[in-house]
Amino acid sequence: MIIVMKYGADEAQVEAVVHKIHQSGLKEHLSRGAELTIIGVIGDEERLDPSRFAILPGVDRVNRVAKQYKIVSRSTHPQGTTIKVRGIEFGGTQIQIIAGPYAAESAQQMNLTADALAAASCRLMRCGAFHAQPYTAPRKEREALAWLKDAAARHQLPVMAELPDVRMLDAFMEYDIEMIQIGERNMQNLDLLREVGRINKPIILKRGVSATIVEWLMAAESIAAGGNHNIIFCEHGIRTFENAYRNVLDVSAIAVLKQETHLPVMVDPSDACGKSWMVPALTKAAIAAGADGVLLDVHPNPAEALYAADQALAPLDLAQLIAGLQPLAAALGRSL
Amino acid sequence: MIIVMKYGADEAQVEAVVHKIHQSGLKEHLSRGAELTIIGVIGDEERLDPSRFAILPGVDRVNRVAKQYKIVSRSTHPQGTTIKVRGIEFGGTQIQIIAGPYAAESAQQMNLTADALAAASCRLMRCGAFHAQPYTAPRKEREALAWLKDAAARHQLPVMAELPDVRMLDAFMEYDIEMIQIGERNMQNLDLLREVGRINKPIILKRGVSATIVEWLMAAESIAAGGNHNIIFCEHGIRTFENAYRNVLDVSAIAVLKQETHLPVMVDPSDACGKSWMVPALTKAAIAAGADGVLLDVHPNPAEALYAADQALAPLDLAQLIAGLQPLAAALGRSL
Amino acid sequence: MIIVMKYGADEAQVEAVVHKIHQSGLKEHLSRGAELTIIGVIGDEERLDPSRFAILPGVDRVNRVAKQYKIVSRSTHPQGTTIKVRGIEFGGTQIQIIAGPYAAESAQQMNLTADALAAASCRLMRCGAFHAQPYTAPRKEREALAWLKDAAARHQLPVMAELPDVRMLDAFMEYDIEMIQIGERNMQNLDLLREVGRINKPIILKRGVSATIVEWLMAAESIAAGGNHNIIFCEHGIRTFENAYRNVLDVSAIAVLKQETHLPVMVDPSDACGKSWMVPALTKAAIAAGADGVLLDVHPNPAEALYAADQALAPLDLAQLIAGLQPLAAALGRSL
Amino acid sequence: MIIVMKYGADEAQVEAVVHKIHQSGLKEHLSRGAELTIIGVIGDEERLDPSRFAILPGVDRVNRVAKQYKIVSRSTHPQGTTIKVRGIEFGGTQIQIIAGPYAAESAQQMNLTADALAAASCRLMRCGAFHAQPYTAPRKEREALAWLKDAAARHQLPVMAELPDVRMLDAFMEYDIEMIQIGERNMQNLDLLREVGRINKPIILKRGVSATIVEWLMAAESIAAGGNHNIIFCEHGIRTFENAYRNVLDVSAIAVLKQETHLPVMVDPSDACGKSWMVPALTKAAIAAGADGVLLDVHPNPAEALYAADQALAPLDLAQLIAGLQPLAAALGRSL
Repeated sequence: MIIVMKYGADEAQVEAVVHKIHQSGLKEHLSRGAELTIIGVIGDEERLDPSRFAILPGVDRVNRVAKQYKIVSRSTHPQGTTIKVRGIEFGGTQIQIIAGPYAAESAQQMNLTADALAAASCRLMRCGAFHAQPYTAPRKEREALAWLKDAAARHQLPVMAELPDVRMLDAFMEYDIEMIQIGERNMQNLDLLREVGRINKPIILKRGVSATIVEWLMAAESIAAGGNHNIIFCEHGIRTFENAYRNVLDVSAIAVLKQETHLPVMVDPSDACGKSWMVPALTKAAIAAGADGVLLDVHPNPAEALYAADQALAPLDLAQLIAGLQPLAAALGRSL
Repeated sequence: MIIVMKYGADEAQVEAVVHKIHQSGLKEHLSRGAELTIIGVIGDEERLDPSRFAILPGVDRVNRVAKQYKIVSRSTHPQGTTIKVRGIEFGGTQIQIIAGPYAAESAQQMNLTADALAAASCRLMRCGAFHAQPYTAPRKEREALAWLKDAAARHQLPVMAELPDVRMLDAFMEYDIEMIQIGERNMQNLDLLREVGRINKPIILKRGVSATIVEWLMAAESIAAGGNHNIIFCEHGIRTFENAYRNVLDVSAIAVLKQETHLPVMVDPSDACGKSWMVPALTKAAIAAGADGVLLDVHPNPAEALYAADQALAPLDLAQLIAGLQPLAAALGRSL
Repeated sequence: MIIVMKYGADEAQVEAVVHKIHQSGLKEHLSRGAELTIIGVIGDEERLDPSRFAILPGVDRVNRVAKQYKIVSRSTHPQGTTIKVRGIEFGGTQIQIIAGPYAAESAQQMNLTADALAAASCRLMRCGAFHAQPYTAPRKEREALAWLKDAAARHQLPVMAELPDVRMLDAFMEYDIEMIQIGERNMQNLDLLREVGRINKPIILKRGVSATIVEWLMAAESIAAGGNHNIIFCEHGIRTFENAYRNVLDVSAIAVLKQETHLPVMVDPSDACGKSWMVPALTKAAIAAGADGVLLDVHPNPAEALYAADQALAPLDLAQLIAGLQPLAAALGRSL
Repeated sequence: MIIVMKYGADEAQVEAVVHKIHQSGLKEHLSRGAELTIIGVIGDEERLDPSRFAILPGVDRVNRVAKQYKIVSRSTHPQGTTIKVRGIEFGGTQIQIIAGPYAAESAQQMNLTADALAAASCRLMRCGAFHAQPYTAPRKEREALAWLKDAAARHQLPVMAELPDVRMLDAFMEYDIEMIQIGERNMQNLDLLREVGRINKPIILKRGVSATIVEWLMAAESIAAGGNHNIIFCEHGIRTFENAYRNVLDVSAIAVLKQETHLPVMVDPSDACGKSWMVPALTKAAIAAGADGVLLDVHPNPAEALYAADQALAPLDLAQLIAGLQPLAAALGRSL
């Protein structure tokens, strides 16, 4: 922690800060410049809220220096981590695609989707969101989980679904949902993070639309603190002033995460932009930037999709996109 | 709903759109300009996802025209609504202040806070957040609720607390927490919104840091749809590129809400800026802009606060601020 | 300047940093924590680009500590500065209103505006923008300046106008425009800042819609460095994800500027929100937050305004707003 | 233009809107829904400011429907346009790289840079910014132009430089700078846009850090309106809440521009992120998303660069990056 004193702070103010540092069982390191006095705090300052010093008279600002995430940090774990789901590896050289519809509509829709994924050589299936219709939709989560599992089972695909609420966790365990997504709105839902920290299924942690990368890493740390280190980050776009698309896909975050954490990084181009015609360009950009995989919104017949129809790829679009990704992956030294 | 066709869209594309409108049981209204064809959709288009038309060939974009919030809208309820909590009125001419600490530390801290509030003529007490320490803190919510109620009872103050998780709702009912806050991270937590929509306690709905006003109104609609119309909006600041303070307090939102909804509007200047020295200026700005009240972070001894020490007002600060607000309220035709 | 080494940086990397500090004629101050090494740089580090150290192996990040603005800083000039324009004081207890149309349309429009301002006791007149119509409008700046001066002269009002381009400066001097506005798009136009730094007329420096407060202070420093210290800041709203209004008026910036600089601070609520019905609420919020004055968009007949018709106050609106501001100013210990 | 009346607007209000439409020489198209009345405006509504209708009583909002850019729009020019600079084609299948230092330091620095570019098979040279040091640097633009041209001439490279101010245009013509950059701060500097609209050199138009894509297209239209259609867009990153890098590189904008305009699109990853270690990932992402080329910050010895040292690629980095781009370009059906 570094405490910068205000221009013109007097000796008594500096001493009061030093006194509080000692009271907290830590040591200070004083540096007096021509204009400014800076006080470094040494010791286990992690547990101390910087605001306790910021409030003292004469203090201009207080900055943490040490990072607040440890388990997920690459500093302490320089090797990249791979996570396996029924033999399918995330974070290795192979790029993974998890695909499926935005909303579960029917068993038939799920079956047709699973067929399309298998035909396109996708190895995992997902069902996007259980809450497609905010305040009118009936709660059919269990039925949707059954459809998803049954459809995927026809092609031996492991499945991924979003856990919207802690009370659904039992159902997810019962139906053996292989990967659990924490949605962007729940990225900082600590109760939910703690619960999935106690199980040992891989967690796909979506970035909140206004979450900084540091907040995202700390959310992952909250999961990891419970013992579950099988975490995969998933960039989902951030909210900005631009409204030509839903969110701005932040490819720079991929590069930063690859440096800051040893865990795999995926991207959801469909949810990020909200327009199927943009998905191929964004998928390629994400993979070129270093992503370990993508989530894709696929519907057997987008024109008849009940929700978010214009962001779903049709089976043919998916096949074409994957065909285009093959040489791209090879050019980057990866496989698909 | 308005469907704008692309420049150069042909007749067959227009007809396909019209056909789909008919299929959906609605009627169209065609307007052919020199360059563009625009198709209005008439009927109960509310239940139809615009993406179903956006996906059709030749369609440039689809815009909803009707607003998606009804119960909370001033259009259908032109008179302002007042909400009473043990005789204290929100949304009337009197401005309300709900004050208390960011985090519950001890029974003594709560008692000293309640004494300070009573001395400053505050009529309601709150306890800010149960999750002050993301991934280390033990779960002491029940104890904190007991401290809060006991401290407030010494001065007959109704209390307000944030409900972080549906599983805590029983405890809130048991301890008779008079007002329930939905925190900014839960503004779009539909499960939580539905639950508090079923009870009849006043809800303070904080704005998410990246939520638009329309999304905020729709979140309120989600609560109201369950039957609970006792909703008070609370602006909390939005996240932008500026990092001189935590969030940017959006006073323009107060003016817009006052026009768009009949429900009361409060502001939390302490959480918005995160710096106690800025709170008086922001409180005055909020009230001048038309807010019906404020939430204030107050601690009996900020220098010893465990969390967020630099955003808490000391008892003396609170008394001074309130003294300054008296003439301001009068100048605006209100009371304090 | 503070240099934070990476976790695990080795001794040779620390030495290379120290070596470069010495090469630059400065001294280092080493602080070795349990996990991190931090190096303070002491001396006239202002002239050194932090990137020169950021690039060295083992360096995690480099932060400037000293502020880069001096002349405009309150640190070195604790007393507030007042700026006088023909006896009218900015930055004192009196609140100033500069009003006038968004665009100059005709001599008659200007005369009617000046009459309305005089009737409402406004003491200064402005003409908003010369570039109302991006790529079609003819260049009529000189004619507009003449209309503005003539209209204002009928009531002895000093005038303010935006200088869009250095090549117009001669015309501004010739017509004796008493105050010069640097528009939000030019806040970082260094050529323009330098030019107005050489004259001695008061400058109203608008904040760019995505400029941080620090960048804004540095832009003012660029003007002041040329010798002209007569600078008035003008908050104009910032661009965010919210699109219910043009920009978000950032009242927190008023509080921060009042602490960071000794110079006066104004606000332009009309341009910020772009809707005349919101202007009274925002004007009151700005003044309650501590602004020294406001810029208001006034048109003799908004329904016939050629541009931005919906943000202009009519003469009657202006009179009513000013009547409402009188008690507010008094409640804040100021006059109007 | 579409005018949406307020819920409950009465007949007289609708008639007043229709009257004003007629007065403006246009025709209306009325659509009365169950709840809302919508009025389409037909004719040459381009020249009419929507605010003139927004101000009328009973009007909820007014939206333009037709796009305000024509010359640069792909609607009216479906074929992609290629722009040639001494035989080098922008917007074709070949990807172009324009590289060079952020700031001109010396003739030797420029010569070494040109040598590095030639060795790496770059075909164009640039010199980034003449204003590296905001308020202290002397004006040495002419000298810098001479260094740039001389260095580039040794390897027959055409050059590109940023025109910071209209008064420098003569020097740019005199030194025969082959391509002219309009910097991100000048994207909406109409005087500058008009001036470069009158010459026939290719213009690289950078996106302002808070400019929407529509504003960017309209800035290009302002240039094109003067007769110069040789415009190349250059994405430069946008300002958001994330501060792990300078700006967020918006790859989605590439996809949208490729659909909205027939003109070429480039990307500046170096300026966007401000960190050389991130440049390779972002360059790949940009090209995978469909960019026609990139601008790269290259310095013969970044450790000794005077400004922005940590964003410059060294000659070896450049060679490695280009080697990695070759297979990527091929995988995308392009060449380098």
